[in-house]
Amino acid sequence: MPPLPPELIEKFRAIVGAKYAVTDPADIEPYVTEERNLFHGRSPLVLRPATTAEVSAICKLASEYKIALVPQGGNTGLVGGQTPHNGEVVVSLRRLDKIREVDTASNTMTCEAGVVLQIAQQKAAEVDRLFPLSLGAEGSCTIGGNLSTNAGGTAALAYGVAREMALGLEVVLADGRVLNALSKLKKDNTGYNLHNLFIGAEGTLGIITAATLKLFPKPRAIETAFVGLKSPAEALKLLTIAQGEASTALTSFELLAEMAVDFSIRHGIDVRDPLQEKHPWYVLMELSSPRDDARATLESILTRAMEEEIVDDAVIAANLTQRSGFWKLRDEMSAAQKPEGGSIKHDISVPVAAVPAFIAEADAAVVKLIPGARPVPFGHLGDGNLHYNVSQPVGVNTADFLARWHDVNAVVFEIVLRMGGSISAEHGIGVLKRDELPEVKDKTAIELMRQVKAMLDPLQIMNPGKVL
Amino acid sequence: MPPLPPELIEKFRAIVGAKYAVTDPADIEPYVTEERNLFHGRSPLVLRPATTAEVSAICKLASEYKIALVPQGGNTGLVGGQTPHNGEVVVSLRRLDKIREVDTASNTMTCEAGVVLQIAQQKAAEVDRLFPLSLGAEGSCTIGGNLSTNAGGTAALAYGVAREMALGLEVVLADGRVLNALSKLKKDNTGYNLHNLFIGAEGTLGIITAATLKLFPKPRAIETAFVGLKSPAEALKLLTIAQGEASTALTSFELLAEMAVDFSIRHGIDVRDPLQEKHPWYVLMELSSPRDDARATLESILTRAMEEEIVDDAVIAANLTQRSGFWKLRDEMSAAQKPEGGSIKHDISVPVAAVPAFIAEADAAVVKLIPGARPVPFGHLGDGNLHYNVSQPVGVNTADFLARWHDVNAVVFEIVLRMGGSISAEHGIGVLKRDELPEVKDKTAIELMRQVKAMLDPLQIMNPGKVL
Repeated sequence: MPPLPPELIEKFRAIVGAKYAVTDPADIEPYVTEERNLFHGRSPLVLRPATTAEVSAICKLASEYKIALVPQGGNTGLVGGQTPHNGEVVVSLRRLDKIREVDTASNTMTCEAGVVLQIAQQKAAEVDRLFPLSLGAEGSCTIGGNLSTNAGGTAALAYGVAREMALGLEVVLADGRVLNALSKLKKDNTGYNLHNLFIGAEGTLGIITAATLKLFPKPRAIETAFVGLKSPAEALKLLTIAQGEASTALTSFELLAEMAVDFSIRHGIDVRDPLQEKHPWYVLMELSSPRDDARATLESILTRAMEEEIVDDAVIAANLTQRSGFWKLRDEMSAAQKPEGGSIKHDISVPVAAVPAFIAEADAAVVKLIPGARPVPFGHLGDGNLHYNVSQPVGVNTADFLARWHDVNAVVFEIVLRMGGSISAEHGIGVLKRDELPEVKDKTAIELMRQVKAMLDPLQIMNPGKVL
Repeated sequence: MPPLPPELIEKFRAIVGAKYAVTDPADIEPYVTEERNLFHGRSPLVLRPATTAEVSAICKLASEYKIALVPQGGNTGLVGGQTPHNGEVVVSLRRLDKIREVDTASNTMTCEAGVVLQIAQQKAAEVDRLFPLSLGAEGSCTIGGNLSTNAGGTAALAYGVAREMALGLEVVLADGRVLNALSKLKKDNTGYNLHNLFIGAEGTLGIITAATLKLFPKPRAIETAFVGLKSPAEALKLLTIAQGEASTALTSFELLAEMAVDFSIRHGIDVRDPLQEKHPWYVLMELSSPRDDARATLESILTRAMEEEIVDDAVIAANLTQRSGFWKLRDEMSAAQKPEGGSIKHDISVPVAAVPAFIAEADAAVVKLIPGARPVPFGHLGDGNLHYNVSQPVGVNTADFLARWHDVNAVVFEIVLRMGGSISAEHGIGVLKRDELPEVKDKTAIELMRQVKAMLDPLQIMNPGKVL
């Protein structure tokens, strides 16, 4: 990419103000690197607009000069979608950080794109409401990024993914037009549903600048259990019982392989096994209720599951400290794989009913491909979403193992696709899975995606090279 | 529209079989008229395909000959979207009536477009699940029509509108390509969200041929209360308390004006007032729970609301007969307006918080425009969705009153739009509101809608003249 014409930089500077048009390489660095150092980009210019009007002016100017833009929120994405791989101009949305309105009677909150997820959660809590989206990066990721990547997280079971939490959006299109599709309405059948095109599009169709989000009643009682059982099939039976008795009060249902728990206990600080004995599989389940009936419901579920010999052992957190302990064991699971050497990761989903068969087939296929490889599956069983990670065999060379990344992917994805699953359940496509997408997606869907892209971004300036 | 070339009719006949290519005017009649006789169309040919492949072949052939198609489900739409106003060929989806799969572990059901809603509900109940979409026409409307119009109904408060119940779709595009976006996955971030474009598009972008629908645990306990109170503002306070205590177990919350209740009691057969005395406003609320706690929760909500003097009187249905009686009173409300003369109807939504102000302003404006006019508002307060109907003044000429339809619309819609509402909450645009749409919708949204239409239906053969 040729250097930006100086007069163009001046024009961009005039839009956002000199202070917010970043050209110093040292200041640019945080925007072109990401946490894990998996992706490293380069950019001559980072723009930090503060208003929708400024974003619109940036897009208009970029269209005029046919300059590519990479929108960026908290820079926490895992597939390289937010990185300027080819010297694009970065548009950081972090300064669009106003919560425009909270409406407790309508149960809505209108946030700008740069509002940090945790701030949105806190703001909801202050008015006795819940904004349920919750994920590891919540301290730094932003609402705009959450929507652009259609984030999932641990509350999707009861409340849905990010898409389901957005009633409406404000979007700046590639040519600078502003689509005002903000709405507090649950029911609005006036024309085509446009805002869902931009959710999950990873900034390739336009820049989300604000969203009307749903709020929910704040739960009064939260009860958490840690359960030992024999197999994913038993866990699925427990899930069916739990949903039957608790319905949407069942807010988390995480399936954990013994090895995932072992790694977490071995390598996590202050992580303890809540149960006396080891079990081949574990479930971390949580009920949230606006009334004080969660404990009774949880006990009823577990009693029935024990009577039916689905559950072998279980403990309910007696207090908040114990509950935190259960979740720490779960939250440490990704980090705890590192000391065990190389880990080849998958973020897949299959129909919930297919999870046990998927694990059995994938384990067998992976071990056949690489004898001694150690599958460490864990994840959101209730959503059919597993972080199907594979740790290297003990004692082998890590680089040699990681060199098989795509071979392992191929074996796992074949099973996923055969079962009607997705090769990217939560994290998106970005650049990481871009080249695989046409192979796994319905042909007509890919054609339509290309048509949509050409329609909304004819100059190919919105986050080019991502997704498609 | 010129008559269809005979060889084209032959080709269509070859696709669906002679029996299912209807050309006899008497047999065509049911497809071109609708229940209320508000719309009457004409068509030379009704095609009744039985498979997606047949629908695809029809669209391919129609594209080749540039022949317009009107997709039709149960023919129960209220805005003329399913009627061939200009001699188009009707494609009735009723024979695509297979339930392809029910998966109780994944909680999904894959239905073809022609499955009648009530059949889908029954099928779910048979496997101890709930398919919650519910509306007046459920005995004859179809899943394809429900999705094409994004139907709402009485369960939207807890379960969402039709859009939220579809995990994926199969769609035949205007040129005959089949988009396979059927999916049982709750989490799938592989590319743009295409299926939501077709939901609510009223058959103008393609023909929905099948859908993967969400199933929910079947409630064990349902408790229903009929409540008298002073104003919509008090009803809103009751809603906030009820959502706080019951969360998603609050499955219905209907606001009813005194006059709506009066009409229903006066004109409905076997409709009785559940309360001793008259009240200016009423709420019909229902809790559904997978456990037997609904009664206690409902009592707790009502006790608190009475202590806070929000509720003046309330009765909880003692048995299923009483419960049916409460709902009959509500369900008769539309029909009961007829004996009172002309009724000018609106299907609007505003943010939930704005409902009391909307009713006050709309009542004043309507009565100022037509002295003696009788507003009869009722509807789904929890969704901000009111059927704001206006009955004629007593004793005036009905035709004269109905001649003011658009004047009354204009006054009501001005208030709706000022409050950030929608002029069509549930029923869609069709032809009835087509000409008003560009005036009420965001300009950029209309431009994008036109771009989407041109992209997916360049020959303008899919339900032309509807929506846009």
